[in-house]
Amino acid sequence: MSQINVLRLTGRSQAVSSAGVTIKEMAARPRVVVVGGGFGGLGAVRKLAGAPFDVLVIDRNNYHLFTPLLYQVASALLDPSEIAYPLRALMRRVGNADFLLAEVTGVDLAARTVTTDHGVEPYDYLVLAPGSVSNFFGIPGLAEKAHPLKTLGEALSLRNDVLRTFEAARWEPDASRRRALLTFAVVGGGPTGIEYAGALAELLPVLRRDYRGHLDVGEARILLLEAADRLLGGFDSESARHALETLQRKGVEVLLGSAVKGVSSGVVELASGEVVSCGTVVWTAGVEANVLGFGLGRPAAHRTLVVEPTLQLPGHPEVFVVGDLAFVAGPDGRALPMLAPVAMQQGHHAARAIRSLASGVAVRPFRYVDRGIMATIGRNSAIVELRRFHFRGFVGWVLWLGLHLLLLIGFRSRFVALLNWAWDYFFYDRPIRLIVRAGERPQA
Amino acid sequence: MSQINVLRLTGRSQAVSSAGVTIKEMAARPRVVVVGGGFGGLGAVRKLAGAPFDVLVIDRNNYHLFTPLLYQVASALLDPSEIAYPLRALMRRVGNADFLLAEVTGVDLAARTVTTDHGVEPYDYLVLAPGSVSNFFGIPGLAEKAHPLKTLGEALSLRNDVLRTFEAARWEPDASRRRALLTFAVVGGGPTGIEYAGALAELLPVLRRDYRGHLDVGEARILLLEAADRLLGGFDSESARHALETLQRKGVEVLLGSAVKGVSSGVVELASGEVVSCGTVVWTAGVEANVLGFGLGRPAAHRTLVVEPTLQLPGHPEVFVVGDLAFVAGPDGRALPMLAPVAMQQGHHAARAIRSLASGVAVRPFRYVDRGIMATIGRNSAIVELRRFHFRGFVGWVLWLGLHLLLLIGFRSRFVALLNWAWDYFFYDRPIRLIVRAGERPQA
Repeated sequence: MSQINVLRLTGRSQAVSSAGVTIKEMAARPRVVVVGGGFGGLGAVRKLAGAPFDVLVIDRNNYHLFTPLLYQVASALLDPSEIAYPLRALMRRVGNADFLLAEVTGVDLAARTVTTDHGVEPYDYLVLAPGSVSNFFGIPGLAEKAHPLKTLGEALSLRNDVLRTFEAARWEPDASRRRALLTFAVVGGGPTGIEYAGALAELLPVLRRDYRGHLDVGEARILLLEAADRLLGGFDSESARHALETLQRKGVEVLLGSAVKGVSSGVVELASGEVVSCGTVVWTAGVEANVLGFGLGRPAAHRTLVVEPTLQLPGHPEVFVVGDLAFVAGPDGRALPMLAPVAMQQGHHAARAIRSLASGVAVRPFRYVDRGIMATIGRNSAIVELRRFHFRGFVGWVLWLGLHLLLLIGFRSRFVALLNWAWDYFFYDRPIRLIVRAGERPQA
Repeated sequence: MSQINVLRLTGRSQAVSSAGVTIKEMAARPRVVVVGGGFGGLGAVRKLAGAPFDVLVIDRNNYHLFTPLLYQVASALLDPSEIAYPLRALMRRVGNADFLLAEVTGVDLAARTVTTDHGVEPYDYLVLAPGSVSNFFGIPGLAEKAHPLKTLGEALSLRNDVLRTFEAARWEPDASRRRALLTFAVVGGGPTGIEYAGALAELLPVLRRDYRGHLDVGEARILLLEAADRLLGGFDSESARHALETLQRKGVEVLLGSAVKGVSSGVVELASGEVVSCGTVVWTAGVEANVLGFGLGRPAAHRTLVVEPTLQLPGHPEVFVVGDLAFVAGPDGRALPMLAPVAMQQGHHAARAIRSLASGVAVRPFRYVDRGIMATIGRNSAIVELRRFHFRGFVGWVLWLGLHLLLLIGFRSRFVALLNWAWDYFFYDRPIRLIVRAGERPQA
């Protein structure tokens, strides 16, 4: 997978600045503003390294997040520093890039500026890669009561809540209330949903030891609710069946054909009218593009923006839309999925296209090279579909493990993640069972 | 140092509970309630292992915190999971102990109950080890504007703020405002103050690389403000001089005889009338016992409680006060310092005393065995005073390193901390430069 190369920003042309100069002097070079430091934005930055542009990356966080492993933070297996890497440390390896920590609030296509909560930034070329957010489809109560799982803060909040729930259950004398507390409903049978449900199921034996003699952890139930009649819509049906069996073997109750109609205090209501009492609801069943695309062009499904085959915004050849925000049809005519490899390849493409534009060369259409998809279901089992080659079970899991280890940024992250995974594997122990929250910031 | 033994809760008598029993049946054994899972509380729990008591530990956090390394979390060198360990995982190694995650709000000495935000817990014996909190001495603005450094949440908040400040400075065009932003005032020349100032000074070269060409990190100033005319009041004057020189060599501006009179937006006012503009104020210059001791007995300095030489509360032989809350005179007649080894030994003592009381044996007075004190000033230098043997510089640092590595709980923590320290040492790189905050918890 091409991710490996993308994440190593090798920036061969380190910009030399005279000592003492605080703000880098604006050369008369075109300015590329990249909105978003995710897979799409970083993909563009890397391919702009050494090119005659000043690149500015804007993100609301100071880190790049390796989202495929977010569920491991939410299940107390990895620490944030294993899956997040400071953007500025990545920028420094690219000589011509700088970073602005700010929230982007709008784009003025006519004035060629990006508005942020930190002022206005002009651009000559714009790469819009703001990613996506959870989509609750207006289902009543969902936005207020359910845990989404898209950001690092959400993953930590979910981890805290799961651990707090077991502490509360320990001291709940009423058996039916205790069972309701200990029911975890994971909504969505896509990769995030099955990965989180599997990780949660494997957290139980660890907690069983912690609570021995005080709480019967066997009272805990993990439900996986999926509206369709199968799991893993993007995978083949054999993989989906394997995932279903593996989850069931791990004790997860998979409820297919179970669309969620509403969530209220301690209760999930299904479209069938059935009502499930539960203490925690995790929402992984829908995403939509960041609201930033609103009004910038013709909208498509899931708040995406229709772009030219070149990824340019219609009427604005200087603006490229990449990643989850871009609506692009694949070779089969269907929209490309919101996946990291798609975003990365689109980032690469935008960078190459900007170089072409600046040299007066025509921009080529984007072509997605599908290298495969994968999902893991806890220890020992994963599903890997690499074009015609499909792997399941232990072999898939070893492939998954090796690949994700390579894809993590930085030797330290890889090493610590490997240690944590090995720890979990051999000792059936979750290293990070801490309920931690940063305090409020004093106003200095 | 005895800490090593304290932290390994080897609990030889694992309580066997019949499967399916959710709430452990209350045996007719006396109940010991331990308020606080810090060094004092854990010291007591460990020595009660296998004794015929039911032990309940109550803490507002679900982890034991290794406070001596808190400043390393606040300076982006360690992750929370390296210095915090789940209390329940410690409890499970002690067969007769359970844990309650709750905030203790009061003690009813007559009724022999502890009131928490989670209900009332009766006790036969009570070990009060609630620790201490920052004391702002009523200095105007301090509580609102300064960062304390006593809890994990505070350390994360400070880390986030330091990193955010550099990001803000990068985009601040006004030189004088930039310099003010980049001035960090650490108040207090005790171990925490010098350790944090040293760690912050060593963070600068890392940030210099991150910001090369964009911000002159040399504009940053680190001030260490100490009201007395020397650093490290508890150490000998030779050690204090060594600390002063080491800090100065690292670029820290040490201002002795500089008491803080007030803090307002961006300004620290000294007793001398001098005013220092700064972006971040860190307060390490005062602690006082947790408010829980209020009204339980005769108060002493820093909100401590006067106890019998046996650590019993006067008039209440069933109540033991240990750690920072206890006012106990040492052999020299002065109060014992608020240090982890003091708390631990007092916890051990309380446990032994409770066993004596239960067997009708007289309780002996507590005697503190002073094994030494130490502080480190960044890479390569520490001060270690082990009775008559004093070590400074590199030798002290190696001693400090080895001892703290042993004292961290759990092989994984030690291993990851060692990796992070080595990473910092060899690559001059801070691994954890992330601004991360857990999201708000949905109300399910």
